[in-house]
Amino acid sequence: MNPKIAQYLDFIVEIDKIKSIFRKSRLFDRSRFENDAEHSWTISVMAALFREFSPFPVNLERVLLMLLLHDVVEVDAGDTFLYSPERGLAEERERKAAERIFGMLDPEHRDLFRGLWEEFEARETPEAKYAAVFDRLEPIYQNYLNEGSTWETHGVTRRMILTANAHIAEGAPEIWDFVRGLTDDAVEKGFLAP
Amino acid sequence: MNPKIAQYLDFIVEIDKIKSIFRKSRLFDRSRFENDAEHSWTISVMAALFREFSPFPVNLERVLLMLLLHDVVEVDAGDTFLYSPERGLAEERERKAAERIFGMLDPEHRDLFRGLWEEFEARETPEAKYAAVFDRLEPIYQNYLNEGSTWETHGVTRRMILTANAHIAEGAPEIWDFVRGLTDDAVEKGFLAP
Repeated sequence: MNPKIAQYLDFIVEIDKIKSIFRKSRLFDRSRFENDAEHSWTISVMAALFREFSPFPVNLERVLLMLLLHDVVEVDAGDTFLYSPERGLAEERERKAAERIFGMLDPEHRDLFRGLWEEFEARETPEAKYAAVFDRLEPIYQNYLNEGSTWETHGVTRRMILTANAHIAEGAPEIWDFVRGLTDDAVEKGFLAP
Repeated sequence: MNPKIAQYLDFIVEIDKIKSIFRKSRLFDRSRFENDAEHSWTISVMAALFREFSPFPVNLERVLLMLLLHDVVEVDAGDTFLYSPERGLAEERERKAAERIFGMLDPEHRDLFRGLWEEFEARETPEAKYAAVFDRLEPIYQNYLNEGSTWETHGVTRRMILTANAHIAEGAPEIWDFVRGLTDDAVEKGFLAP
């Protein structure tokens, strides 16, 4: 048994638990709620596809690694809804989770993966700003296609969406315009409160 | 409505259907079968983590893109079990699916994504050889942890596994040794026929 391979697989088996962490939004086809692994896959493909909408050059490899790893802390911390008043409390839980989960790896990978997670959370580098766009665009578009099911359940308004996601403007200005247009349309069609 | 963003999102919504394409193997925790999007996420993280096991330099961005996209043809073609006698017939179905699905994109992205898919399938470049390792390592390890449930259901033997996955030796020799060891152990423990 190669001990390094065994250690890496232990980590993979551990983070695989995000397949049982369900988000608040349904799949585009409305059939059921989405889990964190599925969400991470979709937004990674989105980031590759929408690259031309980044206003600055980005290292796509780093963007993809951030998006693939950004939710693994939810194995311990669970999913916290973006518009929940408990969002602030989740930070400390997620920090502890990052410590434990990335701590399963050798120091080199622990620091690399944890660094990518922190970079994504801090949203300061071009890669993190660009990556953050897709973490938010996906659920907004899911809810648009679902005629606002999550928004209605949780009392989310257009104003709340535009406030909580305003950073999209920095990571991809044209996508921000698109999101504003979607929310206008959703209000007009009656499935989003202003 | 920005037409380019709308076109890209149409593609994303289309390929999202692989979340309803279930594979023949169960999650590591045995709880249920895995879908293609979840599988693609896991093997992408694996490829990033196991990088030192590649015997040649690889462009990780290309590897990740191949793994993220490799199964989207299954929206049309469905999942074909690796050890099924119908595996050969699936190729034509998948080729047609690639034509239609990547054809939803502008020519530049269509050619880029389809090229990555074909590169992965042909398994000739260093990136494709390395990427292919994880497409196979994941289900083997899932079945090892599940005490051979899929192997038993479908009459898969150790010899069949070593024949169908022999290319792992080229993409990551130490991982191939590991896989051989796993199958030896599975035979010894009685959940894999020799």
